[in-house]
Amino acid sequence: MSAKILDGNALAKAIRAGLARDAAAFQAAAGRPPGLSVILVGEDPASAVYVGHKEKAAREAGFASAVVRLPATASEAEVLDRIAAMAADRAVDGMLVQLPLPKQVDPLAVQRAIPPAKDVDGFHPVNAGMLLLGQKGGFVPCTPLGVMALLDEAEIPLKGAEAVVVGRSTIVGKPVAQLLLDRHATVTIAHSRTRDLAAVCRRADVLVAAAGVPGLVRGAFVKPGAAVIDVGINRITDAAQAEDLLAGQPERLEKFRKNGHALVGDVHFGEAAAAAGWITPVPGGVGPLTVALLLRNTLEGARRTEGLPA
Amino acid sequence: MSAKILDGNALAKAIRAGLARDAAAFQAAAGRPPGLSVILVGEDPASAVYVGHKEKAAREAGFASAVVRLPATASEAEVLDRIAAMAADRAVDGMLVQLPLPKQVDPLAVQRAIPPAKDVDGFHPVNAGMLLLGQKGGFVPCTPLGVMALLDEAEIPLKGAEAVVVGRSTIVGKPVAQLLLDRHATVTIAHSRTRDLAAVCRRADVLVAAAGVPGLVRGAFVKPGAAVIDVGINRITDAAQAEDLLAGQPERLEKFRKNGHALVGDVHFGEAAAAAGWITPVPGGVGPLTVALLLRNTLEGARRTEGLPA
Repeated sequence: MSAKILDGNALAKAIRAGLARDAAAFQAAAGRPPGLSVILVGEDPASAVYVGHKEKAAREAGFASAVVRLPATASEAEVLDRIAAMAADRAVDGMLVQLPLPKQVDPLAVQRAIPPAKDVDGFHPVNAGMLLLGQKGGFVPCTPLGVMALLDEAEIPLKGAEAVVVGRSTIVGKPVAQLLLDRHATVTIAHSRTRDLAAVCRRADVLVAAAGVPGLVRGAFVKPGAAVIDVGINRITDAAQAEDLLAGQPERLEKFRKNGHALVGDVHFGEAAAAAGWITPVPGGVGPLTVALLLRNTLEGARRTEGLPA
Repeated sequence: MSAKILDGNALAKAIRAGLARDAAAFQAAAGRPPGLSVILVGEDPASAVYVGHKEKAAREAGFASAVVRLPATASEAEVLDRIAAMAADRAVDGMLVQLPLPKQVDPLAVQRAIPPAKDVDGFHPVNAGMLLLGQKGGFVPCTPLGVMALLDEAEIPLKGAEAVVVGRSTIVGKPVAQLLLDRHATVTIAHSRTRDLAAVCRRADVLVAAAGVPGLVRGAFVKPGAAVIDVGINRITDAAQAEDLLAGQPERLEKFRKNGHALVGDVHFGEAAAAAGWITPVPGGVGPLTVALLLRNTLEGARRTEGLPA
């Protein structure tokens, strides 16, 4: 393996330590902590885990945090009522409704009910529009911010670089393409309809995989020396797939054989690491940054509300 | 020359004829015509010409139209007052403030004061956000819509095609990239910082030039058989530049020699037409479609307001 590992856990830890200092300074200036509140509808176990991570990270960084739990049977009107109350609460700087939602609740209606100035997930059309238009003062979604934080931490040059983003989701692919473009990369967005994905990816000095397909990006997709950022987090249980995708990672393969499941990214790590200059592991790459940058967005919102400098 | 010409004048004429029929049907159903209103601040002659085109096209298609003219000395508050009055006027379905604005008036403040539901230019962050998020019911800027109309009229295949957009403006480059992506093209956005622009452009099955640089795209930038859409409209007065960029167009060169000026696109037409499969002329390509699609947006807004089907 030639690639340097981009360590998301270490970077997230450093960012959270900085945020704890900044939150203390904010509290000293504003007389209150920055506040992050979450609405969780239903009993989805993965959602409960994610919300727990957010709550814990907020508390550890000295933020006020609150989680409102509603039953899976809650009506859209009930969810919108809770959103309205949170929107009106001056102690709440950032708020979000954990996805996915039960089917009787329209996620678009929910997104639009959150005031753009508290929409720390960056999902509201106003925030998406400000990103597209290159306007300051909005919120950018946290996973794309995590991708940029890893690239910047390693000082990977972006100006004039060829960047290829695989995946065009509204949460990752499209916003990360905008951020790379703002940094003067030449940006290609590839996706499931792209012909000869391998050839398109091989152009990339910076390759961001966000397609949600385990091991989609193989070694032959990677230009020698490229930076490979793997946003995918896929749970696999198939033994043959695990033998393939975990090849070159004997400890992880051993663990798969014991547990019967593993988390893998959209990149074949072993193959890609042999060609790349930098690469993120999965888990431990982009994932840990998401919560840290959610807190950073919340602190930013709090400073704006209180008229304090960034 | 091998390329087929994409005739924007003919397509615009057909669209406007269709809109005149649709506006009559709207008037029969709603008891009023669709309404487009424009605010023009100052005496910029080009702006006056553009606004005149919009007014004339609206009238000819059976739309109600109004132009509010303010002096170049108008304050931002005065402009915002006029916007508020237009926003409240139920007879106005689409409204816009002609750019550029005098320097005492902030164009961002103006854009945000126009209600998204009447923002037929598609410049409001909510409309930009809905475009990025792939949500229906917003307004898309008119020049990008014109690019797509020309491609569709010629039935140029987009799914899986390699599209390259040269230019990343918020009015053309970025939105046209989103529209091409929605149609399943693999989309690259190139710009002034792109290394080896010629090589990037040569990948394109569909090449959209929107950089505002006369003759930037030369023959060697064009993949044989590609569709070349030239969004640039640049006025040139330099004789050597005209001899270069109008080479192969003896009538236009003759006219330049007489008048001392000419309008050229971002593409070297003579060189590109020799390689391309399809190409737009300048003038007479994308330009004429902009006003037609502004009216289409206005009619769409009017139907939404009145609850009529599209």
